[in-house]
Amino acid sequence: MPAFDDLMAFQRQTEALAQIAGRLSWDQETMMPHSAALQRGEEMGAIEAVLHARRSDPRVGEWLAKARPRSAVGKAHLRHIRRDYDRASKVPERLASELARLTSVAHGIWAQARREEDWQAFAPTLAQIVALKREEAQALAQGGDAYDAMLGDYEPGTTAAQVAAMFDAMRPRLVALRAAVLDKPSPKGLKGVYPSGRQMKLARRLARAFGYDLKTGRLDKAVHPFSSGSGLDVRITTRTNPKDPFNCVYSTIHEVGHAAYEQGIDRAYLLTPLGRGVSMGVHESQSRIYENQIGRSRAFSGWLYDQMRDVFGDIGVKSEGAFYAAVNRVQKGYIRTEADEVQYNLHIMLRFDLERALISGDLAVADLEAAWNDRFLADFGYAVDKPSNGVLQDVHWSAGLFGYFPTYSLGNVYAGCLHQAMRADLPKLDKRLAKGDTGPATDWLRGKVQVHGGLYEPREVIAMASGIEPTPEPLLAYLEEKFGALYDL
Amino acid sequence: MPAFDDLMAFQRQTEALAQIAGRLSWDQETMMPHSAALQRGEEMGAIEAVLHARRSDPRVGEWLAKARPRSAVGKAHLRHIRRDYDRASKVPERLASELARLTSVAHGIWAQARREEDWQAFAPTLAQIVALKREEAQALAQGGDAYDAMLGDYEPGTTAAQVAAMFDAMRPRLVALRAAVLDKPSPKGLKGVYPSGRQMKLARRLARAFGYDLKTGRLDKAVHPFSSGSGLDVRITTRTNPKDPFNCVYSTIHEVGHAAYEQGIDRAYLLTPLGRGVSMGVHESQSRIYENQIGRSRAFSGWLYDQMRDVFGDIGVKSEGAFYAAVNRVQKGYIRTEADEVQYNLHIMLRFDLERALISGDLAVADLEAAWNDRFLADFGYAVDKPSNGVLQDVHWSAGLFGYFPTYSLGNVYAGCLHQAMRADLPKLDKRLAKGDTGPATDWLRGKVQVHGGLYEPREVIAMASGIEPTPEPLLAYLEEKFGALYDL
Repeated sequence: MPAFDDLMAFQRQTEALAQIAGRLSWDQETMMPHSAALQRGEEMGAIEAVLHARRSDPRVGEWLAKARPRSAVGKAHLRHIRRDYDRASKVPERLASELARLTSVAHGIWAQARREEDWQAFAPTLAQIVALKREEAQALAQGGDAYDAMLGDYEPGTTAAQVAAMFDAMRPRLVALRAAVLDKPSPKGLKGVYPSGRQMKLARRLARAFGYDLKTGRLDKAVHPFSSGSGLDVRITTRTNPKDPFNCVYSTIHEVGHAAYEQGIDRAYLLTPLGRGVSMGVHESQSRIYENQIGRSRAFSGWLYDQMRDVFGDIGVKSEGAFYAAVNRVQKGYIRTEADEVQYNLHIMLRFDLERALISGDLAVADLEAAWNDRFLADFGYAVDKPSNGVLQDVHWSAGLFGYFPTYSLGNVYAGCLHQAMRADLPKLDKRLAKGDTGPATDWLRGKVQVHGGLYEPREVIAMASGIEPTPEPLLAYLEEKFGALYDL
Repeated sequence: MPAFDDLMAFQRQTEALAQIAGRLSWDQETMMPHSAALQRGEEMGAIEAVLHARRSDPRVGEWLAKARPRSAVGKAHLRHIRRDYDRASKVPERLASELARLTSVAHGIWAQARREEDWQAFAPTLAQIVALKREEAQALAQGGDAYDAMLGDYEPGTTAAQVAAMFDAMRPRLVALRAAVLDKPSPKGLKGVYPSGRQMKLARRLARAFGYDLKTGRLDKAVHPFSSGSGLDVRITTRTNPKDPFNCVYSTIHEVGHAAYEQGIDRAYLLTPLGRGVSMGVHESQSRIYENQIGRSRAFSGWLYDQMRDVFGDIGVKSEGAFYAAVNRVQKGYIRTEADEVQYNLHIMLRFDLERALISGDLAVADLEAAWNDRFLADFGYAVDKPSNGVLQDVHWSAGLFGYFPTYSLGNVYAGCLHQAMRADLPKLDKRLAKGDTGPATDWLRGKVQVHGGLYEPREVIAMASGIEPTPEPLLAYLEEKFGALYDL
């Protein structure tokens, strides 16, 4: 068999094993018995070791040297496999497996520390993770920038310097917009209690409205909303807070955006390197545009207003206009995942700067809580009241996900570019959204972005779909226009 | 590192990967989206290929040659690893993978044939499976008895000749007992409808009553009841039939028996070859003694009677005595999994003789349906009315599980031996069972059998626990006494 075919057959099994690892993570968050964590840590370590050994298998290097792709698709396959091979060959198996084991155990330690508001209970574990991640990043960077190497795991082709420049362009306009908005009276939110079962009923309705295919997926309640898996098995979770049904609504739409991306990829790419979303930033562009530009649009929120009254009865909101204001309310708060469109990226900038400092060694884990609290006070103007509202709020660092946070903002920026182009292509979109029909928008995104999977590089697929090089300008213009109108600025 | 330690470190990862494969099977039966089956097939194929490669890895052979165990525990580890290695090395990978592919396809063909009552639609596939299994057994037996080699996969240390002698001793007494019982009027069963949700509530109560640890386990509803996993993550399923709550009750207790065995193994053996139940027969001895000798005892059924009335209200049974008769009702039927204690082993004997003849070549698959029907008529006294009540009723052969059926009867026989010894050790057991307290019995089983995991050979652990060499005598005496009293023989 030609080297290319040998390589693809080998890679197919590797992809299948990677899907298994994803399924185990899903299980851990949703189904796993509480006291199985220790054993699961070893199981994750074992499958990660197998994956690492396969990705760095010397035969892969030999096949890569000899493989002759027969098409652009074949070339894209090789690009992904080569990237994985280079990465895996640079990271010693001991380190990969130790990181898998540690982060699996760390999840429980972080969760308990957050529950008990005890930063000190998590700090030593995080210090171990940071040490291992620095070791890994240095091995990957080979003299280059360690943080760039981490970012490359989630957003290949984007550098920390590019991200920093992007944030520099965004910060002044977002700070100004935030100040102007918070200066105005806040619209009313929801009052009352919204039973969990009904929230899940609404969540399922929303998932269907956004085209999520439940024959190849499922929706469960979990502590943390997430999407997991590719191809024919893409699962999402959401959460319910009896006092805040919007949390469930927008978490669901967000995760459906991720899942729809995976489900929308050309089926011919199943269990190949092209059969997965191409980067975290592009992934987030889909979840964000579903959640915000579509889900929080004036047109769609009119339909959602009716759905909520259908599911919950009277929700104490008098009009579609008041409802639209409520789903777009800008408020003071501590939590990134609850942040509105105006403030969200400010939360990311804080994390980006702190984790860059942790990785460069400019900041010690022992000083992280203080650094977080100082920066938060400076950026938001009020003090963090407890660790679960501060340094312990996010799962990412416990999972070793350094270099991941900026992809959220890249996703917002990409979503801004895509939204501008989509609106130009679909002048009558709002009429359909007002009926709860997201079809024109989700079809547009599927055809322009999702179907390609890993065929193009991240910035390339966004540029092709939106007709411009990725830039924060459309996002900022959209935010200024939307919130300018909402808050009468 | 000494070879022994290298081997054990390698084996630990293999054990963890085997646990993952088990978790995937659990997921497939309980949680997996319907249309993910195709992808899951490739995932299972990939992990099985990894497991086969590890079990037959040449390094394992080298380590085994050099390893010097430092204790009886170490020797037992090597015994298990050597057995797996010998097995994996003797079966050519082509054959293993062809069997995996064929049996995976065969499952759907068997299920459809059963649904459509069409034996001919399944026969050609079964013929292919038998041919491959014979080839595999000959490779394993290396001149010895092919069926023994198959049995060795599930019950190492027991031969087909031993099973045949056991069945010869059991058959006349079971046939006589069955005839005498069926000659008497049948006690009343349950009438009415028992909601699924309440059955699951009762199932959870029963699981706790039998000491199932839900912190390292979980109980779900599925099409087929099963237990899955070892160590800190042992999950069970049960099923509910609105007209037959006993199906749920005794499926649950049965699976709790399997799960309690896995949960009861010395935690020091976690993720080692000793950290799993030692054989299918010993496994079944635990599930059977939980289900029958404890769960269907007069004392425990008194408590269960109260529980059922508590959960369902009036169940139309007037007394504890009538309830005890109802849970031990002996009735004509076709289906092994629905058979009572008196008739169950007759179903197994039929399968044992037929599959031995298939493997020896004395019986062709083309003649299997006729042979089944002839034998059933001879043994049970009435004719099979349709294939789903006869040759197509069990999944086992479609999965290539030849040599598996006799372990069910071995389990019953072992349970009989254990029960005799346990009753001698615990004269006041019934007083506790009457209060729903299974503690003395389950503690006895844990200490005598479960805690040892794979430390001893199957017959050895039963002999140590029961004080006698395994023999059907105690089981037969127990059945004759119990059903003699119940049916006034």
